[in-house]
Amino acid sequence: MAETSNAATASMAPELQTSGWLNTPKPITLASLRGKVVVLHTFQIFCPGCVQVGIPQAQRIYQEFDPARVAVIGLHTVFEHHAVMGPDALEVFIHEYRLRFPIGIDKYDGAPKGVPLTMHAYKMQGTPTLILIDRTGHIRLHKFGHVSDLTVGFSIGALLSEEIDESSGAAEANPASEAVPASSGSGACDADGCSV
Amino acid sequence: MAETSNAATASMAPELQTSGWLNTPKPITLASLRGKVVVLHTFQIFCPGCVQVGIPQAQRIYQEFDPARVAVIGLHTVFEHHAVMGPDALEVFIHEYRLRFPIGIDKYDGAPKGVPLTMHAYKMQGTPTLILIDRTGHIRLHKFGHVSDLTVGFSIGALLSEEIDESSGAAEANPASEAVPASSGSGACDADGCSV
Amino acid sequence: MAETSNAATASMAPELQTSGWLNTPKPITLASLRGKVVVLHTFQIFCPGCVQVGIPQAQRIYQEFDPARVAVIGLHTVFEHHAVMGPDALEVFIHEYRLRFPIGIDKYDGAPKGVPLTMHAYKMQGTPTLILIDRTGHIRLHKFGHVSDLTVGFSIGALLSEEIDESSGAAEANPASEAVPASSGSGACDADGCSV
Amino acid sequence: MAETSNAATASMAPELQTSGWLNTPKPITLASLRGKVVVLHTFQIFCPGCVQVGIPQAQRIYQEFDPARVAVIGLHTVFEHHAVMGPDALEVFIHEYRLRFPIGIDKYDGAPKGVPLTMHAYKMQGTPTLILIDRTGHIRLHKFGHVSDLTVGFSIGALLSEEIDESSGAAEANPASEAVPASSGSGACDADGCSV
Repeated sequence: MAETSNAATASMAPELQTSGWLNTPKPITLASLRGKVVVLHTFQIFCPGCVQVGIPQAQRIYQEFDPARVAVIGLHTVFEHHAVMGPDALEVFIHEYRLRFPIGIDKYDGAPKGVPLTMHAYKMQGTPTLILIDRTGHIRLHKFGHVSDLTVGFSIGALLSEEIDESSGAAEANPASEAVPASSGSGACDADGCSV
Repeated sequence: MAETSNAATASMAPELQTSGWLNTPKPITLASLRGKVVVLHTFQIFCPGCVQVGIPQAQRIYQEFDPARVAVIGLHTVFEHHAVMGPDALEVFIHEYRLRFPIGIDKYDGAPKGVPLTMHAYKMQGTPTLILIDRTGHIRLHKFGHVSDLTVGFSIGALLSEEIDESSGAAEANPASEAVPASSGSGACDADGCSV
Repeated sequence: MAETSNAATASMAPELQTSGWLNTPKPITLASLRGKVVVLHTFQIFCPGCVQVGIPQAQRIYQEFDPARVAVIGLHTVFEHHAVMGPDALEVFIHEYRLRFPIGIDKYDGAPKGVPLTMHAYKMQGTPTLILIDRTGHIRLHKFGHVSDLTVGFSIGALLSEEIDESSGAAEANPASEAVPASSGSGACDADGCSV
Repeated sequence: MAETSNAATASMAPELQTSGWLNTPKPITLASLRGKVVVLHTFQIFCPGCVQVGIPQAQRIYQEFDPARVAVIGLHTVFEHHAVMGPDALEVFIHEYRLRFPIGIDKYDGAPKGVPLTMHAYKMQGTPTLILIDRTGHIRLHKFGHVSDLTVGFSIGALLSEEIDESSGAAEANPASEAVPASSGSGACDADGCSV
């Protein structure tokens, strides 16, 4: 199974860069979620693997866990077909699928084109990507494609159980040191997800 | 189970009114499909019941049956959120979900607004709606929401087995005599589908 | 898809040879079912493919179709592990799984051992096997493993639509002319079923 | 979600009382598993909720977790229909369903009748029952019916993360102080499981 990485060597999660939010009265920052385990589910509304597997899993996590301890956050990371996956389409999707957890819109450096900023900063390979961030803000699981409920549950259980050592400063490696290729726009989606 | 209606009293299927087609080199008319059983699957790309149940069923029908005898036709009948379910969004959806059967775009009387023309002519209640048309062009099954594979299979088997009486003229009732209310735009979708 | 065979060349279905029945006040013969389409579902209670796929399908067929036109019959064809799949175990299984359709127990030539008589007469390859018998008593579909609901529904629809020609005598070929090997008792089961 | 109980007040898990084992060269005791989290899955081979949901979940846990840290143990706790759920039937079931984890047979006080000894000692309500035992041998989760994969995964993650305090002696309450009614033999099974 996909296991969470070691706390001592984990990278600090880059702050979310968003151009808008849904299902929340105000923008959410990772900084404001310190003390909670963060489940960051990134997706695209026309990615079959996201709609059929990833989003329903995010919904289950949101329904089963105490929001005071586990924050479920969606992030719409559109890296292809930008014209038809804008904020208005996302809003209709969220309404019709009755999603209730906060969902941010990944921001672009300029007009929507290629890979958006947060997706780039995390070096995501495509959608869906599941990222678990521990209570001190470090990335502990980063997985493209499907992750079983057993694994996600296990990882949340392990991360919530960790003692927070206030004095320690975990290595703050720069996760963006390697470039993510710009989207080829080829729309290469399969049952697992859509690749950049 | 939902059963096909009697051949003698069935209404003639109104011709499709479309503004475009995908997955076919040229527009398709019901008239050109006489002699085949037609499976008309109507949907919207942001209707969860369509994406999760209706569309996969249409795919299975398309894969299991001989296209020389059974024509599977999709029809995008957008009656709400018109701005984000245009032809370009439909094209991306079809591409990402790898749909292969011909899909028409229901036409509006003017700009996209309210219920489109074919949807109105068939008095559909919402999406998904499954319509089975017999080899002589008559509507034999018309169902909003989900229909089991057993029922769809049974109906196709029964319709393909019918003798075609060339001399008979089945009652050509006008199916559009009752008005369909314009969409309230309320987006009332549940597990079964989205209602007008 | 698996299609029903031609009526003209179909073999007459051998009569069921049973040592007991459940869910019916008296034994059922195929002869008594002439005029109905018969869905004969053969299984073993410890065959995973039967319990997880075949039996639920038989239940759906029983629930969806009119018993006056479609008779769903189960047949417990034990060809291995005879000691633990006797009538008492079958009765508990039927009770716990809440099966309601009539289920016969395939008979042995002597003590339970090897392939039972009806299974042998139909030359079945293992369990589950689905057999469709038309209204005149002829075998029209004979399939080991899984058959899709679309196919089963289609076949029932086609068979129910056939005109019964009272004067014709369809070829009554002897389906038991080739031997079925005795069970090796190897318990070779996979996701599809258990082979003799 | 079902949460694990507090370590300080948890009861010591009564030792397993078995009359036989499968998938293991020698009997397994809980005492020998100290240091591991134990997933005890109790079931009956003719309990639909066990066969369709509980057993597949136990298989997934066995496949996903490291056996050096998580021990998956099955226990056949037959409280009804004893005549047809003996060791020989269990062995065939395990063989056909290809189960690989160790499975014990709950013991009776005398001939098989009513509720067996381990089931009684744990005051189980029926099958399936999932019991999680921490690394010091205490019962931390005890649930009749279905438990989601998210919850099971979470609980395992939390229990594996606990520090073991060698000096502490958690309360060793006697879990068997209340009587379990003898089985009525009514076979009251539903989608969730079979109740005593």
